[in-house]
Amino acid sequence: MLFKVEMTVNPPKDMSPEQFDSIKLVEKEYSEELQRQGIWCHIWRVVGQYANVSIFDVTDNSHLHEILMKLPLYPYMDVVVTPLCAHPSSIK
Amino acid sequence: MLFKVEMTVNPPKDMSPEQFDSIKLVEKEYSEELQRQGIWCHIWRVVGQYANVSIFDVTDNSHLHEILMKLPLYPYMDVVVTPLCAHPSSIK
Amino acid sequence: MLFKVEMTVNPPKDMSPEQFDSIKLVEKEYSEELQRQGIWCHIWRVVGQYANVSIFDVTDNSHLHEILMKLPLYPYMDVVVTPLCAHPSSIK
Amino acid sequence: MLFKVEMTVNPPKDMSPEQFDSIKLVEKEYSEELQRQGIWCHIWRVVGQYANVSIFDVTDNSHLHEILMKLPLYPYMDVVVTPLCAHPSSIK
Amino acid sequence: MLFKVEMTVNPPKDMSPEQFDSIKLVEKEYSEELQRQGIWCHIWRVVGQYANVSIFDVTDNSHLHEILMKLPLYPYMDVVVTPLCAHPSSIK
Amino acid sequence: MLFKVEMTVNPPKDMSPEQFDSIKLVEKEYSEELQRQGIWCHIWRVVGQYANVSIFDVTDNSHLHEILMKLPLYPYMDVVVTPLCAHPSSIK
Amino acid sequence: MLFKVEMTVNPPKDMSPEQFDSIKLVEKEYSEELQRQGIWCHIWRVVGQYANVSIFDVTDNSHLHEILMKLPLYPYMDVVVTPLCAHPSSIK
Amino acid sequence: MLFKVEMTVNPPKDMSPEQFDSIKLVEKEYSEELQRQGIWCHIWRVVGQYANVSIFDVTDNSHLHEILMKLPLYPYMDVVVTPLCAHPSSIK
Amino acid sequence: MLFKVEMTVNPPKDMSPEQFDSIKLVEKEYSEELQRQGIWCHIWRVVGQYANVSIFDVTDNSHLHEILMKLPLYPYMDVVVTPLCAHPSSIK
Amino acid sequence: MLFKVEMTVNPPKDMSPEQFDSIKLVEKEYSEELQRQGIWCHIWRVVGQYANVSIFDVTDNSHLHEILMKLPLYPYMDVVVTPLCAHPSSIK
Repeated sequence: MLFKVEMTVNPPKDMSPEQFDSIKLVEKEYSEELQRQGIWCHIWRVVGQYANVSIFDVTDNSHLHEILMKLPLYPYMDVVVTPLCAHPSSIK
Repeated sequence: MLFKVEMTVNPPKDMSPEQFDSIKLVEKEYSEELQRQGIWCHIWRVVGQYANVSIFDVTDNSHLHEILMKLPLYPYMDVVVTPLCAHPSSIK
Repeated sequence: MLFKVEMTVNPPKDMSPEQFDSIKLVEKEYSEELQRQGIWCHIWRVVGQYANVSIFDVTDNSHLHEILMKLPLYPYMDVVVTPLCAHPSSIK
Repeated sequence: MLFKVEMTVNPPKDMSPEQFDSIKLVEKEYSEELQRQGIWCHIWRVVGQYANVSIFDVTDNSHLHEILMKLPLYPYMDVVVTPLCAHPSSIK
Repeated sequence: MLFKVEMTVNPPKDMSPEQFDSIKLVEKEYSEELQRQGIWCHIWRVVGQYANVSIFDVTDNSHLHEILMKLPLYPYMDVVVTPLCAHPSSIK
Repeated sequence: MLFKVEMTVNPPKDMSPEQFDSIKLVEKEYSEELQRQGIWCHIWRVVGQYANVSIFDVTDNSHLHEILMKLPLYPYMDVVVTPLCAHPSSIK
Repeated sequence: MLFKVEMTVNPPKDMSPEQFDSIKLVEKEYSEELQRQGIWCHIWRVVGQYANVSIFDVTDNSHLHEILMKLPLYPYMDVVVTPLCAHPSSIK
Repeated sequence: MLFKVEMTVNPPKDMSPEQFDSIKLVEKEYSEELQRQGIWCHIWRVVGQYANVSIFDVTDNSHLHEILMKLPLYPYMDVVVTPLCAHPSSIK
Repeated sequence: MLFKVEMTVNPPKDMSPEQFDSIKLVEKEYSEELQRQGIWCHIWRVVGQYANVSIFDVTDNSHLHEILMKLPLYPYMDVVVTPLCAHPSSIK
Repeated sequence: MLFKVEMTVNPPKDMSPEQFDSIKLVEKEYSEELQRQGIWCHIWRVVGQYANVSIFDVTDNSHLHEILMKLPLYPYMDVVVTPLCAHPSSIK
């Protein structure tokens, strides 16, 4: 079951760059693991923004919620979730 | 070069369903042809909306503009274009 | 799997009240049948608005999409879909 | 008398996680007590958000106001209140 | 139980002034009757707008909904409902 | 001359509850005095919000401005002012 | 007593240019008469818009409302009213 | 060449009232000097807001920009600039 | 004196394509003439939109207003005007 | 390939003017170098705002993203990116 998730990161003003970089590193590993499992299907960077457009393939709503809540950068993110389904014109 | 394009269709009130269906049929063929060419990479339906989320892989801005302007449903669409690029966490 | 769906009806200006009433009657029957099946769990009227707040329990995103697209009043509705999941404070 | 209440929590930046967790614990108990009394009828989590959708059954406007003002997390919440009533298509 | 209701009228473009005036006359009588009953407590005109700010004192949410749905001008109105309660600084 | 004034209070994060309570006490006395003078005609609490809807009867625009600027909570308020006049359907 | 009034004109699609020009002529005369009386103090055109920024000096709210309601173009206008008063830095 | 400029002041939370008052005094003198030169033609206070509506008569865009950037309160202001020109109905 | 002007065209639903094409032809000639005069410095198409971003170099506000009002497509356009001036980092 | 980029700077409240000036100096040099290379084609200041309107000519989306991310002021900016292409009425 597919969802588009758009994440915009607002880096905290009062955290050292080193501390923030270490969170980003954990985030990267977490994302890569979910990509390898086929759950986080796509992640693209939005040009000129500290933001991404992602596609998730999850078992249900709770599955997606759990994944998003565990994002190391979640406390610094605005997240917009859009449920998707097959389009009749898609050839896939 | 990747772009997210979100299209929302506003069916015209004063057109017969048959006429509108025939435009949708041409739209479907146009979309499928671009998908086969690897230009229209993804098209998903937004749940509960007459709208889609699409990913295009084009040579440049003009290429995308030409493709969108030729959409048979373009006169009845709201279109939002977002330029994308590779995300450092993507494993692809 | 639960979703909140908010529907606002914009009655068409150029349809006779009789014709619109007959669509509303089919809508009512369609809604009642889905309620009896336990799919359309709740429907409340928003005070002072031609709008409702509904809760659906569906098998997946596609299931919800199909149900909404078949709403007889769909062409005259604005629809907002919000995916829900269990709240840790819920006693149910 | 029914109301939909949507609550979004903005965790304070300058509070320790322990202190915030202890407020959330009191909030949970407060919510569970009102659920047991049949006043806080439903509470669902919004997927990907630190937010809930709730339905309250109260005696009047003042009753709802008092309940909301006593929410331990109220100072950190955006709250949207929508008065509801019976829908003619509801089978309940 | 008090509610603020703000009503903005959008006169229909395709109705004759005479027909619209006759609806406004019925609206005026309906409003005056509810004012005499102490239900429609206040009605003020917003300066420069075809709009009013009103205060209703009703028995419950359903009572308010019924009253608003019967407004002869309702099909031409945008309506915003805000539940009110006693303010601790009020001397009334 | 009547105005609707809507005030939303944003309590300062960095003030002690005692200090804020003492400002609210002065605010309450200020409001009560203006109510006794017939200038602050109505004040209602918005359900679930730290906000009020008020009606003022003042001699002119400057009079209203002076009153609002002297509100002890003014530095912590969002204020929206709407000029009102008699409604032709009012029976008062 | 001063008010800023901003008026944006939406010319009706279904009126002949001649008919609309004749309404604009009556509007011009009405505006000029109020300017001569010192009531409509200023009227400026917004660059690139079918819109004006105006300053009115009226006796009270009702006076302004009456003037605006009698504008021949009122049915085709969006109107925004802002009450003004003397600024402490003004040398007038 | 005329411009409407609307300025809203957001007093800094972390500055002493004395320090802010001294900036406001310089602002007042700066404004009065420009008024005497006929450049800052009008300044009105918006009722209930820490905001003004001003009209400037400048030689060109750069002239206006320079003037606004030198406002002592500029770092604490939201500024909206609207280019104006003569209105055909103006009798001036 | 420079201005950015953004124009979005809303093609009229009830005009024949031929009639609209003939207006667009006059628009094109009008634009080209102003470009040759160095007044309409730049015009770019917004990708995927029936809209342009333009830069004008005019003598003053009135000059710009006159030019925009004479655009053959003006009645079908939304127009946003932004005054510009030299940037301190520009090397031109 | 052209893009319009609009940048609005929000100077950090807690940085010394000297420190911020030194960042602005590096920003100026970075911008001038890209202008000399023909990549940052235009930069104009928005009148009355700490903001610019810029036109970039880049090889692709990633090129633009890299350039923007390296802006020394990027952490203090709101950035809006709009892809452009040739306009059929342009004489260039």
